[in-house]
Amino acid sequence: MSDQTKYLLEERQMPTAWYNINADMPAPLMPPLHPETKQPVTPEYLASFTPTALLAQDVSQEQHIEIPEPVRDIYKLWRPTPFFRARRLERALRTPAHIYYKYEGVSPVGSHKPNTAVAQAFYAKQEGIKTLTTETGAGQWGTALAMACNMFGLGCEVYMVRISYQQKPYRRHVITTYGAEVFASPSDRTEVGRRFLAEDPDHPGSLGLAVSEGIEAAQTSGGTKKYSLGSFLPHVLLHQTIIGEETLLQMEMAGEYPDIVIGCAGGGSNFAGFAFPFVREKLKHGKHTRIIAVEPAACPTLTKGSFTWDWADAGCVAPICQMYTLGHSFIPATIHAGGLRYHGMAPHVSALVHSGHIEATALDQLATFEAGVAFAKAEGIVPAPESNHAIGVAMNEAVQCRESGEKKVIAFNLSGHGHFDMSAYADYQAGKLERYEYPAEAIERAMQTVPEVTFPGT
Amino acid sequence: MSDQTKYLLEERQMPTAWYNINADMPAPLMPPLHPETKQPVTPEYLASFTPTALLAQDVSQEQHIEIPEPVRDIYKLWRPTPFFRARRLERALRTPAHIYYKYEGVSPVGSHKPNTAVAQAFYAKQEGIKTLTTETGAGQWGTALAMACNMFGLGCEVYMVRISYQQKPYRRHVITTYGAEVFASPSDRTEVGRRFLAEDPDHPGSLGLAVSEGIEAAQTSGGTKKYSLGSFLPHVLLHQTIIGEETLLQMEMAGEYPDIVIGCAGGGSNFAGFAFPFVREKLKHGKHTRIIAVEPAACPTLTKGSFTWDWADAGCVAPICQMYTLGHSFIPATIHAGGLRYHGMAPHVSALVHSGHIEATALDQLATFEAGVAFAKAEGIVPAPESNHAIGVAMNEAVQCRESGEKKVIAFNLSGHGHFDMSAYADYQAGKLERYEYPAEAIERAMQTVPEVTFPGT
Repeated sequence: MSDQTKYLLEERQMPTAWYNINADMPAPLMPPLHPETKQPVTPEYLASFTPTALLAQDVSQEQHIEIPEPVRDIYKLWRPTPFFRARRLERALRTPAHIYYKYEGVSPVGSHKPNTAVAQAFYAKQEGIKTLTTETGAGQWGTALAMACNMFGLGCEVYMVRISYQQKPYRRHVITTYGAEVFASPSDRTEVGRRFLAEDPDHPGSLGLAVSEGIEAAQTSGGTKKYSLGSFLPHVLLHQTIIGEETLLQMEMAGEYPDIVIGCAGGGSNFAGFAFPFVREKLKHGKHTRIIAVEPAACPTLTKGSFTWDWADAGCVAPICQMYTLGHSFIPATIHAGGLRYHGMAPHVSALVHSGHIEATALDQLATFEAGVAFAKAEGIVPAPESNHAIGVAMNEAVQCRESGEKKVIAFNLSGHGHFDMSAYADYQAGKLERYEYPAEAIERAMQTVPEVTFPGT
Repeated sequence: MSDQTKYLLEERQMPTAWYNINADMPAPLMPPLHPETKQPVTPEYLASFTPTALLAQDVSQEQHIEIPEPVRDIYKLWRPTPFFRARRLERALRTPAHIYYKYEGVSPVGSHKPNTAVAQAFYAKQEGIKTLTTETGAGQWGTALAMACNMFGLGCEVYMVRISYQQKPYRRHVITTYGAEVFASPSDRTEVGRRFLAEDPDHPGSLGLAVSEGIEAAQTSGGTKKYSLGSFLPHVLLHQTIIGEETLLQMEMAGEYPDIVIGCAGGGSNFAGFAFPFVREKLKHGKHTRIIAVEPAACPTLTKGSFTWDWADAGCVAPICQMYTLGHSFIPATIHAGGLRYHGMAPHVSALVHSGHIEATALDQLATFEAGVAFAKAEGIVPAPESNHAIGVAMNEAVQCRESGEKKVIAFNLSGHGHFDMSAYADYQAGKLERYEYPAEAIERAMQTVPEVTFPGT
């Protein structure tokens, strides 16, 4: 009897192109607007802080974009990543469902983030940029960009959300091990940082605010520095699609096709990277797959936010995008899934939720850790708190199958391991973890701060 | 041009047997002696705290021992592990040498330890044992056994060296996430623990002392609990040989054979697991390979210890073995490579160093972190402090090749990732790490405590 649980691709089977969903969107996205004029941004404005190759990818209509050879060469340090049938979890849940997971935690920094970090550093190097600036929450993105910049001989400046900088120093030390600089955000290095510090010297920071600092640091550098974002933007989602493209091949090896595809969603990049190739199959090849984005109840952008125009950052220096938002001034509760603490959502993901092609659901923090511990006990891997959101919904769906007797095929993305997040597991075990339900009033207040946009007449 | 850097085995290529070096030892090992009578131990005595299947493996003369199907099934969650050509490191060092490394950090707990934990839990379950007791230093072993026991439905009691319990809580939380119990050692749960606590209520603990507690907890359980050791013993080394057996296949894929094989050595299991299959090729098939065990200068068992008889634990409740030792009362400085803080060395490794088939060398702590950071910058992976010892010697050998122009093939075992050890990297970056040179006087004092053994007339 073959009880194979792991599906590995050979290096030569690694996809050589990213999937660009621009080519297949049911309707084109609205353009981003300038943060001050609220009119469509000019290429010159975007180029003041973004490498031009990435801007070209953002608007490309090619269905596939070739992965440059030097990027693939670094990918091969950990890619193709493994894909598992979670047989032990199935047995523990006594479900007839087949549960599969893609595991991105085997990258050197323990998450999916290097998929885009390496690409962004490559293009920046090609364009003669000296340093990339960026934001990071719990630190997954900062460690990934620090590693990538070091590999291409670029400088790297990381603005790290202050509360994570203080409470979760380990990823910060990974960042500096790779030779990058890291600053607690809000910092006194930028105007926007100083503005928030003046209001509150102990400001805990937020992803949106750290974004503002990273952009300002690039814009005021005279062209030597550009800004790199770890999620949200079309090119970031694009680079992550290697996850889903590999998964399609691995599902084929397993001889099945998913009825349900699940990923956690903060800015949207690990979710999109895993799910968009399945969205293509649904839109273009008639596959009937439910595609579910899972977010924290404490930061329920897709499930409780509004589909409207808002700044992508807290400081209002980033473009205004049409997306689901809780209001750019919304400061999420300090849940342990730091990578999901963001007020907005990638415009592509937002549009596909709005058009009904993708579902969204939210889990409270306790439910996610309960799922994560059950997963660790069954499968061995201790997941990142962000990934626990995907696991929670996968388990709920599998339990429903037990009740209905359906043999559904469920696939989710295990975006990273939780080895940096053990204090969160300790709090959970000690009963000290807060549930954090839907913050209705804070969202209502924050939604009063979204901009009034007259273009394009919405 | 093929610039392949990673060599992956398919699951079906995973070795189905462990390599038992008993079959090929140049001379048989001396038997272990009873801790009190100092006469050869009886099987009954050993069976009072060890599963009998493991005792049978310790004395087996079969060259290969089949890996049970349920053990292989769990191995497949992360095995076969990848094997890399470190081309970026070679370029950084400007060396003509070819540097390869086997990477065991992809296991769910981030180290090689589950290779034996899973096997030990399997045999314990088969024998109707209810709970395994064990010791752990920095926690690698404790997390591995906790995971394995949970998978087989066994209880797990971990005695964790107090200083690690306090200073490095993250692995402790991994242990409890898997449902195991963990106690700071010395604890008040055992007679030996209470004895040491009476001497010093703030005793920092040591691996040797935690071993004593684990054994006592098993011996006083009326047979429901047995003791599980994470290194040192023949069966532990045996289970780890899957590392080296896979590496032999992967070197064949790479079309090369190593001139130098390197592993770090604390109790000896990751070193032996990686190196023993190469020792076999050297002893039996005429391969000319230098095989190097690397230890900390602060705990230089092989390079500065004596080849004599000593207790395997600090509390003198474990058997007396012929081995290299610094004296069982030696308390190593609190270096960050907690897994290498042990006064003795596996009898097989000791005998092969004594007979000249294996070389040994020691590195001071600063040199190991310097190597680890250089490795992280080149290859992306942040290594465990223990693994940095192997990396340091691999880099030194590669630099010598640059000077001599020799194209040597160097292979080392990267036994684990350093994501749990970032505070150590932070100390290194802040210049706060102590060098810890050879502790000559402490060793001299400790060597006065080794037992006088008249059997077998040595």
